[in-house]
Amino acid sequence: MTVMNISESPDIRQAFSNFPSGVAAICAVVDGVPKGLAASSFTVGVSLEPPLVSVAVQNSSTTWPFLKRAERIGVSILGTGQEATCRQLASKNPDKFDEISYTSTDGGAIIIPGCSLWLDCSLFAEYPAGDHVVALLEVHSADVHLHESPIIFHNSKFKTLDLVRSN
Amino acid sequence: MTVMNISESPDIRQAFSNFPSGVAAICAVVDGVPKGLAASSFTVGVSLEPPLVSVAVQNSSTTWPFLKRAERIGVSILGTGQEATCRQLASKNPDKFDEISYTSTDGGAIIIPGCSLWLDCSLFAEYPAGDHVVALLEVHSADVHLHESPIIFHNSKFKTLDLVRSN
Repeated sequence: MTVMNISESPDIRQAFSNFPSGVAAICAVVDGVPKGLAASSFTVGVSLEPPLVSVAVQNSSTTWPFLKRAERIGVSILGTGQEATCRQLASKNPDKFDEISYTSTDGGAIIIPGCSLWLDCSLFAEYPAGDHVVALLEVHSADVHLHESPIIFHNSKFKTLDLVRSN
Repeated sequence: MTVMNISESPDIRQAFSNFPSGVAAICAVVDGVPKGLAASSFTVGVSLEPPLVSVAVQNSSTTWPFLKRAERIGVSILGTGQEATCRQLASKNPDKFDEISYTSTDGGAIIIPGCSLWLDCSLFAEYPAGDHVVALLEVHSADVHLHESPIIFHNSKFKTLDLVRSN
């Protein structure tokens, strides 16, 4: 074992990067303007009744204060080939949507075409979590695209999925 | 679009299964007995200062009341080849650890050998989340095993990672 003592190390990011995660584009039109962020600290199945997903957002986010006001928030789980969209949404560019094509619902939830799973959500609860908040989003409808394979972020690289053959 | 109206459908589990996730074995020795559960509603990077991860646990879990009392809780991100361990920990078998080899720390955190990432944690906060609770765990140390590829649970199947070649 080569245990890394977190309290003495700046490398918690490196340790965390070894956990594989899907990438969620969390986006809505707010006051007529598209707003969005890319989150890898996202998970589904937080509750089934009501259906809830969760996302951790930095306290310093300048986008979240807009998103949390939206009537509906779209969650697009990005698919293979959407690496550029992920980088764009994770950037500090004030015009993040300049090169991203999207559609939106009447409630303002943004859909990124080509995603592997899309969820139409609203804010359910928000809890403090250190330098982030954990937001619970209630899912009102879902759109599953089985032909679009989700992209995985792991060790700071984008990866795809392969079925375990021995399973 | 073939939107699934969640309020009219029992298929939220099916929609959620389309989100890819790593599998966390959350285990500790409590009162001398190993206790553990497998969680796919787990995520890292919930906070960096302090370092926090989160897991959603069913309110009906009979294991969580034990784990939450542990001084330290081990989180093993399962690697390729540990599918049986995942199934065993997810089962209702009262002797889940009968066929699982493990070691534990002085604080009681359980380590599953062969995992791709291991975190030594303690309970930081617990929040209500519908039919689950969201538990935040503070990370005290980490052990990264770069040679062990994490297993991914997606569409009810175990999968492995492939690097995106075009990236």
